[in-house]
Amino acid sequence: MRVVFTVAYDGTDFCGWQVQTNKRTVQGVLERAIYEATGENVRVTGSGRTDSGVHAAGQVCHFNTSTLIPPEKLYLCVNQYLPSDVSVLSSREADDNFDCSRAAKRKTYRYRIYISPAKNPLLERYCVKAEAEPDILLMRAAAEYFVGEHDFKAFCASGSSAKTTVRKIYSVGISEENIFGARVIFFDVCGGGFLYNMVRSMVGELMEVGLLRLPPEAVKKSLEEPNRSAIGRTMRAKGLTLISVEY
Amino acid sequence: MRVVFTVAYDGTDFCGWQVQTNKRTVQGVLERAIYEATGENVRVTGSGRTDSGVHAAGQVCHFNTSTLIPPEKLYLCVNQYLPSDVSVLSSREADDNFDCSRAAKRKTYRYRIYISPAKNPLLERYCVKAEAEPDILLMRAAAEYFVGEHDFKAFCASGSSAKTTVRKIYSVGISEENIFGARVIFFDVCGGGFLYNMVRSMVGELMEVGLLRLPPEAVKKSLEEPNRSAIGRTMRAKGLTLISVEY
Repeated sequence: MRVVFTVAYDGTDFCGWQVQTNKRTVQGVLERAIYEATGENVRVTGSGRTDSGVHAAGQVCHFNTSTLIPPEKLYLCVNQYLPSDVSVLSSREADDNFDCSRAAKRKTYRYRIYISPAKNPLLERYCVKAEAEPDILLMRAAAEYFVGEHDFKAFCASGSSAKTTVRKIYSVGISEENIFGARVIFFDVCGGGFLYNMVRSMVGELMEVGLLRLPPEAVKKSLEEPNRSAIGRTMRAKGLTLISVEY
Repeated sequence: MRVVFTVAYDGTDFCGWQVQTNKRTVQGVLERAIYEATGENVRVTGSGRTDSGVHAAGQVCHFNTSTLIPPEKLYLCVNQYLPSDVSVLSSREADDNFDCSRAAKRKTYRYRIYISPAKNPLLERYCVKAEAEPDILLMRAAAEYFVGEHDFKAFCASGSSAKTTVRKIYSVGISEENIFGARVIFFDVCGGGFLYNMVRSMVGELMEVGLLRLPPEAVKKSLEEPNRSAIGRTMRAKGLTLISVEY
């Protein structure tokens, strides 16, 4: 049978999702735990990779197994063998031809920035610090240019093997909240798919706008002139979390 | 001159606030960093202790120094010598007779519980997991009994050296939010002062009410019959954060 897992992980101590020789990856740790729980060597397929240091609250993956453990209980058994920075939140059986990468319709990422003159140890793990207050309204105006289908070549790290750099963005929401005494800004980006480093360079460009270093129209330009590169302003991985994958 | 610091720390790897021989404490680490920054051996006085594992977003402390570094810049110098789990958020000069412990008028603590069938690595550091959904309205009804001046003897760990167990609670707010895909319940307790383990046993009793193991009136009884002990239901330290101290 094919089983689907929803997985959460703290990306701090992982070299990303995908298995690499001699590196600690989420996929590798999961496959090992599934082996411990079922005795089977399986290959886990994720909805997509996440980069080194990126977190996930709702990554989705699938694999085939002939275990007799009921699929909806399997996550509890696998969790017994997982380290404290990964956890399977739920499991279910799926059709044999369900592919959690190809079938993914939308993914939502959240980037978190907090404003503070000094580091706040309670926020440092999942947020990135900014010292100056960005202008939220300007950033929202700039974010509107991202919505729709565009060529995101300027927001893609070189070395990407993607066949096309055209992607569809459904929404970019910018909100704020007080967490542990600091002002935290959330960037929620929902899209059909993402290129390597895309969310982090989108947020980097929005912050340039918020800090008045670029006008909001700079985003439009970066989308219309794909040879321009916005990737120099890529934000750090630790502020990014894959929130959910929709099917 | 007397300097006042506002300090944030992740309590996970500390044996609490107060200096103890051969143990890593926040006060000890701070005094060491002040020595590195100023060359002076100072004694830092906190607004109160926090227990082993308890976090702080706005602990306040004071000390005397004859450094020539301007008081409002001193926190930046001290931060150079602090490990990543403590940070001074601000510093200012105060009157020579200002005592941040005696002058404290109100303290606010936040306790965080998340509801999930499996551990969520992104929440485990500052929240405690509960598997069943507590009834928020019942907990709010129970929390009202805490408000006012009461004998909190039933909510105080034995071994406390407090002269009186009477304390004044200004408010107990219970709210919820979705964080990293999970339902997180916040217990915000504001009071004039707290006994050892008091907030954690108050929240423990409220959770008993929320999970229908005790009626809301049990809180009233625990306050009226101080020989009763509610301390058996003390919640774990890691869910608790000292948010702010008001003067």
